[in-house]
Amino acid sequence: MTYKKVDACDLKWLKDAGLDLISGADIPEEYGHDELSGDRRMPEAVVVAHSAGEVSTLLGYANEKKIPVTPRGSGTGLVGAAVPLCGGIVLDMSKMNRILELDEDNLTVTVEPGVLLMDLAAFTEEHGFLYPPDPGEKSATIGGNINTNAGGMRAVKYGVTRDYVRGLEVVLPTGKILEIGGKMVKNSSGYALKDLMVGSEGTLGVVTKAVLKLLPLPERTISLLIPFADLKAAIDTVPLIIRARAIPTAVEFIERAVIRAAEDYLGTRFPDHEGDAYLLLRFDGASEEDMERDYDRVAKLCLEQGARDVFILDTEERSTVVWKARGAFLEAIKMSTSEMDEVDVVVPRSAVNDMVTYAGRVEKEVGIRIRYFGHAGDGNLHIYILRDDLPEEEWKDKLKRAMALLYEKAKALSGAVSGEHGIGYAKKGYLKESLDPEQLALMRGIKGVFDPNHILNPDKICF
Amino acid sequence: MTYKKVDACDLKWLKDAGLDLISGADIPEEYGHDELSGDRRMPEAVVVAHSAGEVSTLLGYANEKKIPVTPRGSGTGLVGAAVPLCGGIVLDMSKMNRILELDEDNLTVTVEPGVLLMDLAAFTEEHGFLYPPDPGEKSATIGGNINTNAGGMRAVKYGVTRDYVRGLEVVLPTGKILEIGGKMVKNSSGYALKDLMVGSEGTLGVVTKAVLKLLPLPERTISLLIPFADLKAAIDTVPLIIRARAIPTAVEFIERAVIRAAEDYLGTRFPDHEGDAYLLLRFDGASEEDMERDYDRVAKLCLEQGARDVFILDTEERSTVVWKARGAFLEAIKMSTSEMDEVDVVVPRSAVNDMVTYAGRVEKEVGIRIRYFGHAGDGNLHIYILRDDLPEEEWKDKLKRAMALLYEKAKALSGAVSGEHGIGYAKKGYLKESLDPEQLALMRGIKGVFDPNHILNPDKICF
Repeated sequence: MTYKKVDACDLKWLKDAGLDLISGADIPEEYGHDELSGDRRMPEAVVVAHSAGEVSTLLGYANEKKIPVTPRGSGTGLVGAAVPLCGGIVLDMSKMNRILELDEDNLTVTVEPGVLLMDLAAFTEEHGFLYPPDPGEKSATIGGNINTNAGGMRAVKYGVTRDYVRGLEVVLPTGKILEIGGKMVKNSSGYALKDLMVGSEGTLGVVTKAVLKLLPLPERTISLLIPFADLKAAIDTVPLIIRARAIPTAVEFIERAVIRAAEDYLGTRFPDHEGDAYLLLRFDGASEEDMERDYDRVAKLCLEQGARDVFILDTEERSTVVWKARGAFLEAIKMSTSEMDEVDVVVPRSAVNDMVTYAGRVEKEVGIRIRYFGHAGDGNLHIYILRDDLPEEEWKDKLKRAMALLYEKAKALSGAVSGEHGIGYAKKGYLKESLDPEQLALMRGIKGVFDPNHILNPDKICF
Repeated sequence: MTYKKVDACDLKWLKDAGLDLISGADIPEEYGHDELSGDRRMPEAVVVAHSAGEVSTLLGYANEKKIPVTPRGSGTGLVGAAVPLCGGIVLDMSKMNRILELDEDNLTVTVEPGVLLMDLAAFTEEHGFLYPPDPGEKSATIGGNINTNAGGMRAVKYGVTRDYVRGLEVVLPTGKILEIGGKMVKNSSGYALKDLMVGSEGTLGVVTKAVLKLLPLPERTISLLIPFADLKAAIDTVPLIIRARAIPTAVEFIERAVIRAAEDYLGTRFPDHEGDAYLLLRFDGASEEDMERDYDRVAKLCLEQGARDVFILDTEERSTVVWKARGAFLEAIKMSTSEMDEVDVVVPRSAVNDMVTYAGRVEKEVGIRIRYFGHAGDGNLHIYILRDDLPEEEWKDKLKRAMALLYEKAKALSGAVSGEHGIGYAKKGYLKESLDPEQLALMRGIKGVFDPNHILNPDKICF
């Protein structure tokens, strides 16, 4: 695909059209990268969107001129999906950040895509509602979450972002503004365009509004922190918890080494140092008794499985210390090394131990430091491969070997390349290896239907 | 599109390939129609599938020869989706009806598409699990449910079929067998082909296996039957129930006239004759106390809103009588008239009363008998237009006018053409009127990607 460079003429047209434009040396450096991926490239211009109409104006023009456009939220992605790898224009959606409507009859909230997760959570909880998806990165935008179908920590009980998107306003690459879905609970009216748009990483259309499903806010939540002698014992307990029919909202596993990194990073002490590994569980319910029944059963079960203790984090304070540590893992690991890359594989819940054990073996065999934590309840692991003081060449080589081994293993365990971070640019090769060529061909075909000129976030996912 | 007729040569090839073939005068009459829609046409041949391999063999051949293939489950559809309107071959999936695996660690059940809903429910409940989608038609196949994204009565609390499909084995129109999704809870690995396949009414691929998500079976369920003076009072109470944060698993509304039809049809008496209209609610939970808290609140609220009484159906026997009546509504209405057609619109929950009131007005204005019942909790209404003793011409004319008015109203209320029955052939025109032409163009484009020769269930949904 050859694209047109943005020239003075284009800049004039965009400015005359009333768009909020940044160009040349004025473009802040952050528009050239995301939170993690190694891929960097500065755009030729940035348009900051304030309405669906503006997005439509930009895309209509870019489509006609064959200028690539890369949508961006708050840039917290990890796989390069918001990096303008073909140059062109970055479309900054972060300023479309209004919460438009809370509809208590239909249990929905309507938002613009730039609303941050932390602001959405504060708003809904203040009104007595829960928006269940709960990724660790609270400064991500809801638009970004929709585009990666983010799952987060409550997926084991509540499911993922797609399950909570009822309707979308989307601008197609042609500039056409479409409403898909709505406030309806059910829909069987043609192909599932709304569901297809969710998780498409800004390659099929630009989300300019979303109707999200809410739940009543559970009246009580409680967390359990459970130390085990080793990680295997901890993770082996998870399927037993599920079999015991106690469905926690979150089941996280934590290793001692990651806790140490978080302690260093936050400058606070983790409340326990007994275990080499921990399960961190959260329960919610409409009453103390509901939850007590569930967590009593789970506590007993864990002790039978060799847990060294069960800490009930029943005060705000005790709970906050632990969940804050959990929330800091990614940053803590990042700060502990010179450079890193990540693997966000998802496997069936019953295969988590196999995957984690294998990651430990890769660490030894390849000779590179690997850290991991993740969602034991839903099978989504975040594995980080750390450069430390390795020379460039050796780092690249070892990273490549470690990655290849980890993705191969996930495939062998009937897993998938990404649970929630997406494919973007960084994981394209691994997606290609994990899927049937016919499946990739279908995806490419779909892209062609939505974006025949390939101007919207080109070169991502399946190209 | 012109298609090849099935000739003796094709029949020989299919037979030699080992397929289970029915042709000519041996084809049972039922293959030419579904449960309701007026469209009828006999296929030129029927292939009864026993494996994905056989489906692949058939589709590969049909694709090469340009012979249309229409997949069919148990034929309980209402919109002609399983009727072979372009002739060709009907692919009967009902004999692929094995339950393959219950995976208690991953909370999934793997099934073939021909498994009946009633058999799936019996199997999962026997093992202590719940498959939440619960359409009234229990002799529908799970494959059919997946293809219409059926919702059923528990959608208000648990969501719809798409939310419970984790993975699919699908045969593409080219004959290629694909695995999409799997047992994973999260997935952000390329476009959502699994979600697109769900609800595609057998036009994009043939489902030959499905991995379904299960929940632990709730330990207690209880139903409330609540008589009101009129339907408006009953339905107006529903948003208040939702606002009260008591989420029932089902909220059905029932009118006296429909109860009378069910009494005639079943030959049994409904347990109450106080109200002109009823709400029928069901709650589930892990304990008696949980549910009591919820339904106490709801009972009080209903009485405040003018309910004449609240019957707690706390024995199996009392509950069965009422739900059996509810399950018989469609058949009862059908038996009360000479011919009928249906409207399966879905509107936001808050607009149910507007829609129902309007249906009453259409009945008067057009001068045709209309009956309805439906899911007040999720906004999905089943409206039936009855011919009774109208002459052919008048019936067609009045039906057309009533339909047009009802679909227009649903659109005006930000609703959609179908909540769960699908579009098939019968509702194509209404879908066309309700959606943006660009949205239809995207759907047609997607169909072209999956089925370039348009051999799979042609002429449905968006063509």
